[in-house]
Amino acid sequence: MTETVAAAPGCLTGVKVLDMTQFEAGTSCTQVLAMLGAEVVKVENPVKGDPGRRMGYTTPHRDDPYFLMYNANKKSVTVNVKSARGLEIVKELARHADVFMENFAPGAIERLGLGYAVLRELNPGIIYGQVKGFGEGSPYEKNLAFDMIAQACGGSMSTTGDSDGRPCKPGPTVGDTGTGMLMVISILAALYRRRETGQGTRLGVAMQDAIFHYIRGAFGVTSKSGKPARRAGAQSIGGGNPPCNIYPCAPGGPNDYVFVYTSRANPTHWPRLLEVIGRQDLIDDPRYATRTARIEREAEVDAIIAEWTRKRDKYEAMNVIGAAGIPAGAVRDTLELLNDPDFERRGIMQVIEHPTNGPFKMPTFPVRYDGKPPVVKPAPLLGQHTDEVLQSWLGMNGERLAALRTEKVI
Amino acid sequence: MTETVAAAPGCLTGVKVLDMTQFEAGTSCTQVLAMLGAEVVKVENPVKGDPGRRMGYTTPHRDDPYFLMYNANKKSVTVNVKSARGLEIVKELARHADVFMENFAPGAIERLGLGYAVLRELNPGIIYGQVKGFGEGSPYEKNLAFDMIAQACGGSMSTTGDSDGRPCKPGPTVGDTGTGMLMVISILAALYRRRETGQGTRLGVAMQDAIFHYIRGAFGVTSKSGKPARRAGAQSIGGGNPPCNIYPCAPGGPNDYVFVYTSRANPTHWPRLLEVIGRQDLIDDPRYATRTARIEREAEVDAIIAEWTRKRDKYEAMNVIGAAGIPAGAVRDTLELLNDPDFERRGIMQVIEHPTNGPFKMPTFPVRYDGKPPVVKPAPLLGQHTDEVLQSWLGMNGERLAALRTEKVI
Repeated sequence: MTETVAAAPGCLTGVKVLDMTQFEAGTSCTQVLAMLGAEVVKVENPVKGDPGRRMGYTTPHRDDPYFLMYNANKKSVTVNVKSARGLEIVKELARHADVFMENFAPGAIERLGLGYAVLRELNPGIIYGQVKGFGEGSPYEKNLAFDMIAQACGGSMSTTGDSDGRPCKPGPTVGDTGTGMLMVISILAALYRRRETGQGTRLGVAMQDAIFHYIRGAFGVTSKSGKPARRAGAQSIGGGNPPCNIYPCAPGGPNDYVFVYTSRANPTHWPRLLEVIGRQDLIDDPRYATRTARIEREAEVDAIIAEWTRKRDKYEAMNVIGAAGIPAGAVRDTLELLNDPDFERRGIMQVIEHPTNGPFKMPTFPVRYDGKPPVVKPAPLLGQHTDEVLQSWLGMNGERLAALRTEKVI
Repeated sequence: MTETVAAAPGCLTGVKVLDMTQFEAGTSCTQVLAMLGAEVVKVENPVKGDPGRRMGYTTPHRDDPYFLMYNANKKSVTVNVKSARGLEIVKELARHADVFMENFAPGAIERLGLGYAVLRELNPGIIYGQVKGFGEGSPYEKNLAFDMIAQACGGSMSTTGDSDGRPCKPGPTVGDTGTGMLMVISILAALYRRRETGQGTRLGVAMQDAIFHYIRGAFGVTSKSGKPARRAGAQSIGGGNPPCNIYPCAPGGPNDYVFVYTSRANPTHWPRLLEVIGRQDLIDDPRYATRTARIEREAEVDAIIAEWTRKRDKYEAMNVIGAAGIPAGAVRDTLELLNDPDFERRGIMQVIEHPTNGPFKMPTFPVRYDGKPPVVKPAPLLGQHTDEVLQSWLGMNGERLAALRTEKVI
């Protein structure tokens, strides 16, 4: 990591977050708060912790990369919330918290005795955030959901995949992290307001509803056409402006493609592209000279470009076309991106030293503050900060902690 | 709209945003600030305005639904920033703004004379946000990008599509709105800090880098396997837990599928699913009884479920399976969602009365504050608030405004 990666921005220094999230939709939210400087205390079951720690791994004492990705920069406190004393401890922590966040199954947090009505009584300023699969009042409000269920019900799968194929799940976890980001926004806005009013708020978002936010363009297309937005393969849903597609590159691997687009806002893109690919002969050809003509002959347009791209690798194609001022992008896979030193050099990916997993490279929150992105700290081991937090938040001494540990409360 | 949809949360009342964004990545950011109560003033070219107004429409005096989706709740002020007087007006507005936001092509805002160094001089507290395609210091930092270029270069296309097919572009505009949401977070965090320090910040995010944030799970998979994360059709990238797929439903249309998943965290899901589909005979069958067995016979598992789903429509399938406590979700298209009264009843979709386009239904920011989502107000007509804002922010009188209009400055 170079000097260009400086300290975390620390915008939220002093903000205390009581974090009862697991898996991704909730954890992605609190992780961003932690990366921006909040003290995020993740409360976990003393036996197994967040089930996200064990997604695929069976190696003892190692947390799955999935957990590391969504719990960096947090603290972990183990409390058995099903014991009376454990529940009391969580309530005491809630008295000191600015933010509470959970994403259990519908009704679970209330059954635990940690619903909003209870916590607000203890701490009227608390900002209480909940992520569920379906919204309050939805016919499905009691149903379980995961990212893929939300992406099915929220419309994003219907708009993803080949035009003549089945719906595909978008790779990005829009139902999970996508929802989590909308909750971060809401928590920060509520914190901003609270400085004036002192009043807390209950915040709730459904993963199904959150998907809509990321496919508004597709809803716009439906508004115009009166038809469901189509699946468009590699193209944009709006469509209608060829070339706007991926083109095959050498050596022909599963991700050896380059995206090429000529913007409708810039009529010079098309003739410039023809120059780049050595087809100046077509610049004035009426078969391709206008957008309307290219729409009619989209397959021919695609073939003309593919003839050139096929002889180049995707990076060369991107570099040559991009340097001519035409939008172009190589389709990059996750291994290529993880191994590309550019991202580490710029601090967008950072290598953490995890106490049991060793060196681990992961993306940070990618926004730069005065040029510098936040520093990633490793996700906590299970219960790593139990003593520290119970001392600093609740003033418990070593004797008390030892007793609680003997009683298996923490 | 029912009473359950109350006033906007107003968390950001009093926050002034000077908005020089267009298309989606920037506009989605400032729209959320507007929905949360900020006064967002969009500065547009007096002749055509944001090119997003005219994406596909050629009808005069009508803005494309694309524009309506990303510019609700804002004000529009027309200023010719290429005239000296127009540039001065924008600088004067910047003196009064808390936040400045732009997503022009790389270098354009600096060439206009509205770079961070200039505005910070005028207003040291300004929070200055920029979205670009590629990051500062990236080999591609001068290149143009659009959502699909970012999704190609950021890895999300490589993880989307059929396992034996080409990369597909995820339907959600993760490169645009996904990036915009990370900028909203950063602006709010910077506003929160500024209340203590009085100091502004320069915030920058690249669309390519932002994609990583939404595919961290895929990077985690690559960390474990050492291989690029695969495309997985309708399945999760992590995979390995059948059933976890979409199953065909009657009457067999392009989106007539139901997603069914049996969580590895809950071993009762599988036997319960077998009961629901009338295959109790298989509950103790060793061919399917364990997760390992089901992985080995995934195609058989899928066939067993599909035999049942094919005879139901997707809603019935979702209702019956979901009611048994098993995660299930119908694949819904954008027309079905727009027409479903559930979302309007809960205030998640709202019908606005647009002055030239008429009634228009669109999703609001989906997080509920004390049970109520923000109210959507129509995107502004070009220049609709020029007089109002120049009067209230800069104290200009009618005579002055008339002169500026005559000189074609506003």
